[in-house]
Amino acid sequence: MADPKFFQKSKEFTLEQISKIAKIRLPKNIDSKKIIDDIAPLNTADNNKISFLDNKNYINQFKASKAGACFFKKDFLDIAPKKMIPLVSDNPYHSFALIANAFYPLKNEVLGKNSNNYIDSTVKYDNSVKISFGAVISKNVTIGSNSFIGANTVIMQGVTIGKNTIIGSNCTIAYSIIGSNVKIHNGVKIGQDGFGFAQNNNLHLKVPQLGRVLIEDDVEIGSNSTIDRGTSNDTKIGHGSKLDNLVQIAHNVILGKNCILVAQCGIAGSTILGNNVIVGGQVGIAGHLNIGNNVKIAGKSGVMKDIKDNSIVAGIPSVHVTDWHRQTIILKKLIKKKNG
Amino acid sequence: MADPKFFQKSKEFTLEQISKIAKIRLPKNIDSKKIIDDIAPLNTADNNKISFLDNKNYINQFKASKAGACFFKKDFLDIAPKKMIPLVSDNPYHSFALIANAFYPLKNEVLGKNSNNYIDSTVKYDNSVKISFGAVISKNVTIGSNSFIGANTVIMQGVTIGKNTIIGSNCTIAYSIIGSNVKIHNGVKIGQDGFGFAQNNNLHLKVPQLGRVLIEDDVEIGSNSTIDRGTSNDTKIGHGSKLDNLVQIAHNVILGKNCILVAQCGIAGSTILGNNVIVGGQVGIAGHLNIGNNVKIAGKSGVMKDIKDNSIVAGIPSVHVTDWHRQTIILKKLIKKKNG
Amino acid sequence: MADPKFFQKSKEFTLEQISKIAKIRLPKNIDSKKIIDDIAPLNTADNNKISFLDNKNYINQFKASKAGACFFKKDFLDIAPKKMIPLVSDNPYHSFALIANAFYPLKNEVLGKNSNNYIDSTVKYDNSVKISFGAVISKNVTIGSNSFIGANTVIMQGVTIGKNTIIGSNCTIAYSIIGSNVKIHNGVKIGQDGFGFAQNNNLHLKVPQLGRVLIEDDVEIGSNSTIDRGTSNDTKIGHGSKLDNLVQIAHNVILGKNCILVAQCGIAGSTILGNNVIVGGQVGIAGHLNIGNNVKIAGKSGVMKDIKDNSIVAGIPSVHVTDWHRQTIILKKLIKKKNG
Repeated sequence: MADPKFFQKSKEFTLEQISKIAKIRLPKNIDSKKIIDDIAPLNTADNNKISFLDNKNYINQFKASKAGACFFKKDFLDIAPKKMIPLVSDNPYHSFALIANAFYPLKNEVLGKNSNNYIDSTVKYDNSVKISFGAVISKNVTIGSNSFIGANTVIMQGVTIGKNTIIGSNCTIAYSIIGSNVKIHNGVKIGQDGFGFAQNNNLHLKVPQLGRVLIEDDVEIGSNSTIDRGTSNDTKIGHGSKLDNLVQIAHNVILGKNCILVAQCGIAGSTILGNNVIVGGQVGIAGHLNIGNNVKIAGKSGVMKDIKDNSIVAGIPSVHVTDWHRQTIILKKLIKKKNG
Repeated sequence: MADPKFFQKSKEFTLEQISKIAKIRLPKNIDSKKIIDDIAPLNTADNNKISFLDNKNYINQFKASKAGACFFKKDFLDIAPKKMIPLVSDNPYHSFALIANAFYPLKNEVLGKNSNNYIDSTVKYDNSVKISFGAVISKNVTIGSNSFIGANTVIMQGVTIGKNTIIGSNCTIAYSIIGSNVKIHNGVKIGQDGFGFAQNNNLHLKVPQLGRVLIEDDVEIGSNSTIDRGTSNDTKIGHGSKLDNLVQIAHNVILGKNCILVAQCGIAGSTILGNNVIVGGQVGIAGHLNIGNNVKIAGKSGVMKDIKDNSIVAGIPSVHVTDWHRQTIILKKLIKKKNG
Repeated sequence: MADPKFFQKSKEFTLEQISKIAKIRLPKNIDSKKIIDDIAPLNTADNNKISFLDNKNYINQFKASKAGACFFKKDFLDIAPKKMIPLVSDNPYHSFALIANAFYPLKNEVLGKNSNNYIDSTVKYDNSVKISFGAVISKNVTIGSNSFIGANTVIMQGVTIGKNTIIGSNCTIAYSIIGSNVKIHNGVKIGQDGFGFAQNNNLHLKVPQLGRVLIEDDVEIGSNSTIDRGTSNDTKIGHGSKLDNLVQIAHNVILGKNCILVAQCGIAGSTILGNNVIVGGQVGIAGHLNIGNNVKIAGKSGVMKDIKDNSIVAGIPSVHVTDWHRQTIILKKLIKKKNG
């Protein structure tokens, strides 16, 4: 399936190995030594491929699939093809993702290792660290083991980077403490001074930005996103949060754990998000707000006041999503009335 | 007109040469050997300059213009100045653009050619290819003739680039097949893995992104835009499409031919656009939608469902543009009523 | 307060020195030789620190503060702690910012100076200019004294840069005249050709973009922002204007003096802004408009027509901010009526 010019499979797996990786039980009376040689979608999988059913829209493909093995929920056991080995899972897409990661582990190309990059003599790192061509690593930077620095990326003075962290190409990182298992995509800019000015007769005097950026473990930050450092406190991206491309995080923003920020959203200065917040694409959140845990914000919303835990909001200004749907319906009716 | 520090004219042209380049007929009884030495706007052009009239707002400038030759529609023949050589065209701005391109052909600065860049020994390219200082070209990359790679740009393993393609500075390109006559502006990031996660108890497990990015011929992509590669199918930008700056294209998006995407718009995963679609600035299009051919989407719209061929839409959520104007009018009236 | 790994204090100051820097008068009968050794917030400051009160929400912290000296308005003189030396100021935050800048002057890290960068032999600059590793400076560029060029940044042919100007890492600057005391953050792209095409049967022919970008003194441009050069006239960013991250400025846009453009806003081609305009985050302004002096545009607005001096607008399409609030209230009422 995957173009071999770009993606190299690691190896084949037996069903027994697969059951351990995906942490699911194999059915009895099957050949646990059977070889699975790749992942595949339901409609193209053959007898040596593994697939999954997660969405009812694909039930017909499922019934006709020739996949040798397949993850699905137990409700579908009755309609599974007889030749398919059933791998019952409470979360089939998650099980499949575990296997897909085993077949196609993340690899990072080290480009021109140890040539034409600038690594200050004070940088602390061991032999497991890979630093690509054109990278610039400044004074007193620390890089944990197995971390990777992409080509033409710039790491400024004093930055600390954890273990197994990947920083792509053409990034600039400054004034930051970055955790382990973090992935920072190409072109991300972190730690520049925020947009803070003292006004005086229409002149804007920059206020020194003396905080840092803290990025906790397991965070991912999408291409060309920007994260400013704090004014006196720190800007913080909580454990496991994932940011898409072209996202803007202003100074002093604090994100809780496991937040999802979809592309092109922006969060203004000093706003605090709880855990598990989902922010849709192109959402804007004003400054100095408190957004509770488990909040969901629909794409393109403009948030102008605090949001309580577990709320779902939409619109500009954002309201409860039910009210937003009502607004949409009422506007539709008013137009018809006018025309009628 | 153009600052000679930045722009170098190629040469002068006779009217005969101009008629061939612009594919229009010269009027009879004129001197086809007359020299035109530059392009100019109507109000500053002198007898050796060529200009154009495309917009009725400029008719007074047209009547008073001293331009030696001018492209315009035949309707204006009667009011053209007597000394101006009339170059009648069905599409005067297009004719002018052809001539402007002849006077000012695109040039690319090769910066520090063949010095301090990293070109893997397996890269395929001929002597006509120009690779700038600090560029990094990885294993098994192929670059077609006359193509250009800007300074500090990174091309990852296996990427194929067609002929006469220009890639600016500080770009990163990965997992991509790029056509000919493509222009990728400074800072563009293409082919990074998309925003795809399998959820499990609020944890987000990255799903391997095993597709590619296909960019067809004659595409242009604006500065600091981002295009993610596909999950298992490919992300695709169709022939002749033009993307402005800071545009976001998510995984598995397919753009048809000759689409126009204005700055800061974003298209979520797996959405398909037909041919000749115009997407305004800061528009957001949700995922898994079908947008028909010749659709026009007004700036700042939020598209949340499929759109049929030839439709014009606006608003959040987007509706037919006429309905959107009605919404605006009704809101205005309701406010007045309240105040009255 | 500030992490010494990242921020180095310049030195200590006496109150006398502070009064000169902040241009305020010391009270009589105090020890003008008293040493202040750092800035601090009201609640953590001790007797050797200087702080400020700008926002009434912090009055309780102010009353209990142990700061040795503090800027505040004269109205609060009666409630100031007795041990605090009062520094009465009409604009306490501005006074504090002046002192904060004295304690923490901007420093730029020169990374790998004079190594592995490309400086064309025709570049004009003196010894006070700092050019970092991997920077590429092309033909006939001029750089004023004390200016700084970050790592892996590309300055294209003919660009002129004034004095004391800072250009960050991974930037590309072309076709531009840049003033003095300008700060261009990491990843900014300036001067690429704008999004101008002549249409012909759905094909889009690029029109040569023969203007420049003029950036006046004291401008700041946020990370990963993009500014296109003009078509025949110039794109211009007026004196003292400040642009946040991920801002898009299209060709031929003219910004007046001291404008503030918050993150992710975009201004379409040929629009003109007056002086002191404040553009909120994620605002879009259509092309060919005139926006008057002192206009304020609320975040997420979509501006589709001219705006008069001193107006405040909001909404899509933008209306006077009072009308926008009325729209919001009316929609709320209509929903209740429906439910009631």
